[in-house]
Amino acid sequence: MAKDTHVPASITSADVARLAGVSRATVSFVLNDTQGHRVSASTRARVLDAAKQLGYVPHAAARSLRAGRSNLVLMPASISAVGRLVSDWVDDLHSELDRYGYTAVLHAGRFADPLDAARAWAELRPAAVVALDGDRFTPRAAEVLTRAGVRGLLAFASHPVEGVHTVGFDHTRIGATAAEHLIARGRSRIGVVMPQERGLGTLAAPRLAGAESVAARHMATVTPVELSYTRESASALARRWRGLGLDAAFTYNDEYAALLLHALQAEGIVVPDEVALVGCDDLVLATLQQPALSTVRLDMPTPAQIADAVHELVETGTAKPVPAVNPVLIQRRTS
Amino acid sequence: MAKDTHVPASITSADVARLAGVSRATVSFVLNDTQGHRVSASTRARVLDAAKQLGYVPHAAARSLRAGRSNLVLMPASISAVGRLVSDWVDDLHSELDRYGYTAVLHAGRFADPLDAARAWAELRPAAVVALDGDRFTPRAAEVLTRAGVRGLLAFASHPVEGVHTVGFDHTRIGATAAEHLIARGRSRIGVVMPQERGLGTLAAPRLAGAESVAARHMATVTPVELSYTRESASALARRWRGLGLDAAFTYNDEYAALLLHALQAEGIVVPDEVALVGCDDLVLATLQQPALSTVRLDMPTPAQIADAVHELVETGTAKPVPAVNPVLIQRRTS
Repeated sequence: MAKDTHVPASITSADVARLAGVSRATVSFVLNDTQGHRVSASTRARVLDAAKQLGYVPHAAARSLRAGRSNLVLMPASISAVGRLVSDWVDDLHSELDRYGYTAVLHAGRFADPLDAARAWAELRPAAVVALDGDRFTPRAAEVLTRAGVRGLLAFASHPVEGVHTVGFDHTRIGATAAEHLIARGRSRIGVVMPQERGLGTLAAPRLAGAESVAARHMATVTPVELSYTRESASALARRWRGLGLDAAFTYNDEYAALLLHALQAEGIVVPDEVALVGCDDLVLATLQQPALSTVRLDMPTPAQIADAVHELVETGTAKPVPAVNPVLIQRRTS
Repeated sequence: MAKDTHVPASITSADVARLAGVSRATVSFVLNDTQGHRVSASTRARVLDAAKQLGYVPHAAARSLRAGRSNLVLMPASISAVGRLVSDWVDDLHSELDRYGYTAVLHAGRFADPLDAARAWAELRPAAVVALDGDRFTPRAAEVLTRAGVRGLLAFASHPVEGVHTVGFDHTRIGATAAEHLIARGRSRIGVVMPQERGLGTLAAPRLAGAESVAARHMATVTPVELSYTRESASALARRWRGLGLDAAFTYNDEYAALLLHALQAEGIVVPDEVALVGCDDLVLATLQQPALSTVRLDMPTPAQIADAVHELVETGTAKPVPAVNPVLIQRRTS
């Protein structure tokens, strides 16, 4: 532990310049690897020594201002909305981006208006923006980002957005996949769980719509049922379950499925005899339930595919298409 | 959808200056609210109009360079290591920071050396750094950040770190709380689950040490047992469980507890008769297990308390102490 307890003052490039006996501009040329300026090897060494001695860290923002871009890749995301499924995937994506020299940050701001969001992201002048929940991207928002110099715009979304490299992620297909399976299993009155937790509504609504469009083509009905991720909310729903007249449920994801399964069983409602259940994400916990949960597995493009596309976009302005997210029904014992 | 499909060029303050008929410096004074420069109301209006017309977003980095600081609060965190327990808490913290005008970002970089981490964070010149896993903070790392102008350094850590506003989070107390309970329940051969997932080792090791120090004061033993968060790993552990001669386990958290509980039951091992289990975090799923899981609840300071402290640190360089994280044993049916 250092004995010296004074608070160190901020070190600037001026301090480095003074110690190295060069101009501040020369310090900037050396530390920011500015092209088109000749600095002798000995001067360069003197500057690097002085920076090291003073513990000077170059300012990424200053560097990005000079170079006209940063190495930041911004992912708009609230971490509680990012489920267990994608959290490992996002970590892996960050590692892959790191391989290319990018620094990935999650931006946690919540915005009612996509344009406000785009403006807030643009202020950080990232090299790229990668949105998992890209259905709120608009052409205007993309334009705000492009005009601010953001070169890589990649979004998971159900429909192509002008100016954005879109990876297909159609949440209606998730609800449709679950509903098709439940109807094939002979069920006709399907409840679709709508999680009440913030940030999930924009994902849950298209899943409901997908189930509804499948039901409309068969003699089946779909009823949205609200559920919060608490034991109390699940018990309340289970108590009024028989009054709803439903013989099946698609539960948004496996965690809500496990919660509802336990609550239904506590009310003496037998799964799957009285109610068939289908979750989503194929989490480890799905196989642990008794009976084991049927679920929709989401086959994602690999983090390396996304990182490659982001880098291509930043470097060249275009990128090869990335395969879409594909929902696959995994039948176990609850359906 | 706009018919015009050209990719818009980057808009800079020079474009705004041209349209407004003023100098680039004047644009900067107006858009960055620079103090000490007089700009007439009509010039100001002209600049704001031009910026709006062109869709120009000021550069946060440029603003931070001029103001000498940014409004960024950086949280080093891999999102998969941030458990379910803290993910809602982190979201709430981001909202509280937003109230003060800060933008919170999660920095996902992984670093073997705390100094490398500090340098990478320092490059972004945040106003503050908030570390949940602060035991890897060193006085040297704090100095790198302080010298780079970071004013708010707040870390959850077991011991005070020079130059860092420390919030007590002693993971040894979590392991000790679990071990004390298990010993009070008549158990003497305690397994401590060591999760093999990346990022969790630094949290699991002190929990093990805490259990060991309690066991050493009683006639009890502690045995670390490795477990990955997969069904296969849990089954393998359950199959060799009886050979380990353990009558209790503290499982790192509730998710590993649920996984191990199911695997033990599948091997015909009765919980709690043969093995008592204690998880951690008091998640919703703990109450859903059969039998319901005993657990260690972690009482955290509120997100508002942390945001207040961060803002105080940034504004004044000091802050009132924040209450430490407090582990509380919740006994249910597995112990």
